[in-house]
Amino acid sequence: MRIAIAGFGVVAQAFVRMLDARRAHLYRAHGLRPRIVAVMDSRGVAIDRDGVAVGDLLALKQRGGSVGELDSGLGDATAEQLVAASEADLLIEATPSDYQELRAVNQRLMAAFRGGTHVISVNKAPLALAFSALHELAQHNQAEFRFSGTVGAGTPMLAMAEQCARGDEIIDLRAVLNGTTNFILCRMHEQGQSFDEALNEAQQRGYAETDPSADVDGVDAAAKVTILSNAVLGRSVSLGDIDCAGIRGMTVDRLVDAAARGKRIKLVGECGENLRVAPMEVDAGGLLDVSETRNALSLRLRYGGEVTLTGRGAGGDETATAVMRDLVDIWHIVGSRS
Amino acid sequence: MRIAIAGFGVVAQAFVRMLDARRAHLYRAHGLRPRIVAVMDSRGVAIDRDGVAVGDLLALKQRGGSVGELDSGLGDATAEQLVAASEADLLIEATPSDYQELRAVNQRLMAAFRGGTHVISVNKAPLALAFSALHELAQHNQAEFRFSGTVGAGTPMLAMAEQCARGDEIIDLRAVLNGTTNFILCRMHEQGQSFDEALNEAQQRGYAETDPSADVDGVDAAAKVTILSNAVLGRSVSLGDIDCAGIRGMTVDRLVDAAARGKRIKLVGECGENLRVAPMEVDAGGLLDVSETRNALSLRLRYGGEVTLTGRGAGGDETATAVMRDLVDIWHIVGSRS
Repeated sequence: MRIAIAGFGVVAQAFVRMLDARRAHLYRAHGLRPRIVAVMDSRGVAIDRDGVAVGDLLALKQRGGSVGELDSGLGDATAEQLVAASEADLLIEATPSDYQELRAVNQRLMAAFRGGTHVISVNKAPLALAFSALHELAQHNQAEFRFSGTVGAGTPMLAMAEQCARGDEIIDLRAVLNGTTNFILCRMHEQGQSFDEALNEAQQRGYAETDPSADVDGVDAAAKVTILSNAVLGRSVSLGDIDCAGIRGMTVDRLVDAAARGKRIKLVGECGENLRVAPMEVDAGGLLDVSETRNALSLRLRYGGEVTLTGRGAGGDETATAVMRDLVDIWHIVGSRS
Repeated sequence: MRIAIAGFGVVAQAFVRMLDARRAHLYRAHGLRPRIVAVMDSRGVAIDRDGVAVGDLLALKQRGGSVGELDSGLGDATAEQLVAASEADLLIEATPSDYQELRAVNQRLMAAFRGGTHVISVNKAPLALAFSALHELAQHNQAEFRFSGTVGAGTPMLAMAEQCARGDEIIDLRAVLNGTTNFILCRMHEQGQSFDEALNEAQQRGYAETDPSADVDGVDAAAKVTILSNAVLGRSVSLGDIDCAGIRGMTVDRLVDAAARGKRIKLVGECGENLRVAPMEVDAGGLLDVSETRNALSLRLRYGGEVTLTGRGAGGDETATAVMRDLVDIWHIVGSRS
């Protein structure tokens, strides 16, 4: 299976290392032989239909270089050219989630689908803003479209919820979906840090970006609620439909006050009667009271009651395992077709 | 899709009611039109290739009758005849898990597989005692074999773990898998009941059988560990390979002593270096400290850290949703083949 990768940051690099480490297993267990035929980063593209020298690329990135330094004669390739020139069967979209500037990523995904190329997206933005359009285009072209890594990093939240939706009816869901804000709230509560101090520590640990607004203003969590709503609850909604409040202005006093009543304040996403993300109180010690950067997804089912999945909610290696799952899933579907 | 059902107890009855309630949804969402063509209970069999009158059967069972009263001219049908005469595409094996007497159920499953009939089993015994043989026979005959309801009732534990195994490596797992013993241990700890008193209450509530040994001696949990080991960890083991201790002889004193150290005693199944079921201490308030009849499965992953799924671990409706998931899954695979 020939794979093109758009975006060569932490997740994509972890994924290619993992692919290398699990090569023998993937062939033995699934008969799958993946070959990376194109890699694109913000400064260039490397294409080789016989397989890109991934080790060289990783070394290049480690010393701050760009994949464009491996000259492919396609230095200024457009989105369409990347997929077409590499003759990839699968595009892994691993560029960062940018909710303002979507043109390039949307063009790339649409070009892929139109050519029947399957897509795994780790980028949440196109899904949060154009889920239905992309989903329909993929279906129309019989291309598979997966995005496990967009919710819960490596914790299989979408797959678990899809299974529940298959056999039962999901009445509603509540979830802690953003690791950065959860870390900040935990630090404020446990160590009495102010919001700014806790945010600063999250940034030093690499949990929060230099511009932390997507996390702290709730946009990241709202994007995940949007994806869950569409993929699992069959509700055709977009990011703008989520009533969204973040944790700026949260005070230690509020956290202490909640704790005195046996509660914790978490940034909770809800999809049911309400479609919203906001700081909400949850039971201390309850299933949504997760620590540090952990995530939790709790579904209320018509027949099955409450089902809750918890696990790490961030990390390059973790998210790369979700890409791996999607890859194997797609391979099983595509393999049975051919 | 033509369905034969062997065993018409709580789970199977819940399933056919659910099938009826979700008929429109199944066709709209999946293009699936299930038809029940045979139902067998311990006293007879009803076969109708145009569809068994399920409403009549449910009414019969409610007044203590047997499906055999709907005369099919096959009152003493053998296992092979049940599947063959009904021309079923799928057999749902919903007889009770009997670890002593397996001949009839094994014959039925083998006859189904040899005829290319797919199987959904809720009965744990054949899986716990002959997993590899059944799995290989199914594969050889290109028949699908699913058993989601055998672990975690309606909580999709097997599916979640399979997803994790697909993208990551499962180092080991720990789980609370038997709702009855968990209920008994909770009652002993919270209300100071003796083992016998708590067992008696569990029986009155319908959680424990008249002969509670499969639950309290750990056999039920060990069967589930066996199934997880085979299906998810790729370890070819049988029920007898599990080092198994139950909760008979548990005292309130031991529970109180553990609580004083911030611990709870649960009947925990382990699959890793050890393969065992035994009363073990877990952290109070931790993810394995589940209440009442709830179950929990915690996986330790190489890249993804700890992932934990909790939900109800028993119940007819709950288990029926697992059968429904398996049915839809099989339909999607079979549909794409034809």
